[in-house]
Amino acid sequence: MDYYKESLKLHEENRGKMEMVSKAPLKTRDDLSIAYTPGVAQPCLEIRDNPENVWKYTPKSHMIAVVSDGSAVLGLGNIGGPASYPVMEGKAILFKQFGGVDAVPICLDTQDTEEIIRTVKAIAPTFGGINLEDISAPRCFEIDKRLREELDIPVFHDDQHGTAVVVSAALINACKLTGRRLNTVKTVINGAGAAGIAVARMLHAIGVRDIVICDSKGLISRSRLSELDKEKRSILEITNQSDISGGLTEAVRGRDLFIGVSGPRLLTPDMVKTMAQEPVIFAMSNPEPEIMPDLALAAGASVVGTGRSDFPNQINNVLVFPGIFKGALAARAKAITEEMKAAAAYALAEIVEPHELRADYIIPDVFNPKVAEAIADAVAKEYGRS
Amino acid sequence: MDYYKESLKLHEENRGKMEMVSKAPLKTRDDLSIAYTPGVAQPCLEIRDNPENVWKYTPKSHMIAVVSDGSAVLGLGNIGGPASYPVMEGKAILFKQFGGVDAVPICLDTQDTEEIIRTVKAIAPTFGGINLEDISAPRCFEIDKRLREELDIPVFHDDQHGTAVVVSAALINACKLTGRRLNTVKTVINGAGAAGIAVARMLHAIGVRDIVICDSKGLISRSRLSELDKEKRSILEITNQSDISGGLTEAVRGRDLFIGVSGPRLLTPDMVKTMAQEPVIFAMSNPEPEIMPDLALAAGASVVGTGRSDFPNQINNVLVFPGIFKGALAARAKAITEEMKAAAAYALAEIVEPHELRADYIIPDVFNPKVAEAIADAVAKEYGRS
Repeated sequence: MDYYKESLKLHEENRGKMEMVSKAPLKTRDDLSIAYTPGVAQPCLEIRDNPENVWKYTPKSHMIAVVSDGSAVLGLGNIGGPASYPVMEGKAILFKQFGGVDAVPICLDTQDTEEIIRTVKAIAPTFGGINLEDISAPRCFEIDKRLREELDIPVFHDDQHGTAVVVSAALINACKLTGRRLNTVKTVINGAGAAGIAVARMLHAIGVRDIVICDSKGLISRSRLSELDKEKRSILEITNQSDISGGLTEAVRGRDLFIGVSGPRLLTPDMVKTMAQEPVIFAMSNPEPEIMPDLALAAGASVVGTGRSDFPNQINNVLVFPGIFKGALAARAKAITEEMKAAAAYALAEIVEPHELRADYIIPDVFNPKVAEAIADAVAKEYGRS
Repeated sequence: MDYYKESLKLHEENRGKMEMVSKAPLKTRDDLSIAYTPGVAQPCLEIRDNPENVWKYTPKSHMIAVVSDGSAVLGLGNIGGPASYPVMEGKAILFKQFGGVDAVPICLDTQDTEEIIRTVKAIAPTFGGINLEDISAPRCFEIDKRLREELDIPVFHDDQHGTAVVVSAALINACKLTGRRLNTVKTVINGAGAAGIAVARMLHAIGVRDIVICDSKGLISRSRLSELDKEKRSILEITNQSDISGGLTEAVRGRDLFIGVSGPRLLTPDMVKTMAQEPVIFAMSNPEPEIMPDLALAAGASVVGTGRSDFPNQINNVLVFPGIFKGALAARAKAITEEMKAAAAYALAEIVEPHELRADYIIPDVFNPKVAEAIADAVAKEYGRS
């Protein structure tokens, strides 16, 4: 099937792919008087008198915004807010389908960090959470951080944190399957954009101690300090403790785990052969992975995951974001904490029962109906503990 | 029926009254590959390569924002953005029900004029139009004006222009019925907020020549120039040409038409008796009109309209805004011009056929299915002419 052609057809026929639907009847004068004036004054007054009531009487408790400036969309790069609309709308309908969360795409006309922060804050009362999407590094770090500090609803940059959670879940199960422990697994991450940096931070938070990370110029190391941006400098505090230098070839040597959030065909079979025995490979570049699964397996890999639906072990954010927000909204969480993300990763991993675990089944299928519910429960429970 | 109690129940049971629904199937891997990655890249690229394609492949062509800062909500005053949410959501579902227009409520966290303008501009790529709502005067004039100048999609402050259009339609038919002509009808408007000022401007634009307007301190006249704000000063250019002074009592004397956009019981039967023979009274204060219809009729009025659904001649904006945006979106209009508003008013008036016209039927019922269609056609046609 030609997905590109079919997609164009779908979008043209429906002019997009979502609509807003009333849950209130509007057929009679009484209907209007209840859903609109004069009756509607009552929920307004209840909210005026107690701002918490906005959760009780409006869509805030089940509606989020999917916000993008279109600066880093799929593999397409900086195509701008309007051109990112089909992706944001797609995300919105996935939120509904998998998490029962209503979501509104908000495609911005600005790529200025402060303007984005201001805009999201200004529209925030409408929403129970903000999913930031496809905003390029390093601006995404500042925007995500500032909004998390300045808003009292959950803010989640999916490219960072969704990726980090799903990779963590895959790693937890890969460790179980291959008899490794998180605190000794030697990890290399290729790609130091939003995803790579966030994966490094989250793996560190759940106990991985030996991580090195490469950008397009090679290993991020102290020798490159003067040329590194703030975020890459900061990631050095928790990565590359032996301070090795070099390119990807040097970086992968002896590693148990390769995580690719970079580009097509960057990991060669020869490189895989220099890794530790039976390494784990998560080659998530889309649509073309860092290494094709058959090549990785032939070169000695024990477990291979990709971002693609046509190979086993699809490590895809859609496993994570619907459940994260479903849980955060259910708990009326004010934030999504490191602990909540970890809880989500473990909940996702545990959906694959010990007896089901296989090299080609370390992560649940995206259509597994248990996924969002399990993550939501774990996230809400963890928030309750905090 | 206790609308207030029923409304609270409706809003609590549904947590608001709207949801976002997918129009794309999402049950199989192929579905995901078409609605989301990788297929979704195609409409993105089509938009990147030709920005006009955002109208073809996204909800922009059928989705608008209903934006409020909650500073002038119903008769409740400045209750703030979050507390205005049930009204904005109500407006959104009316757009869908009556105009087939998808609408997203956006309740703002700011009441700063510049910040509102900036925010609406930043989120504008998502929407095919902006309906401003319940923003207090005089800020609403600046916000509406600036956004109309600075955006290339229609911006419509319903409290101003929706009211002006529906009042114009009612007046056109009242003139037909009572044998008056627009250019000679002596008009008094009570209330110089968003609605009053906009009604004055629109009546002037469609040919009404003799208009006086009162605020809470009485007639707006040159003698009060130093105390008047910019908007009220400016309205003097087209109103009160004889420069009369005084209170409402002086203002209504000898007038053919009273338009109330003010408050309850401000027009007494004694005042009506001083008006011209068989005057026309539009007493639109809600829920309690400036004068009750039975009192106005007993005092000599020939035609009475109110904002209420339980009296004849309900002069309600819901007759106007769905059709205006339906038409503007169909024409991909970049603005809603004076001419388009006039076309809407005449189209609305003409739905009541000459032989149907009666003192208690000068304006169509809000459930008349012809209304939105007729207005939309007229608005789109008028835009095509421009």
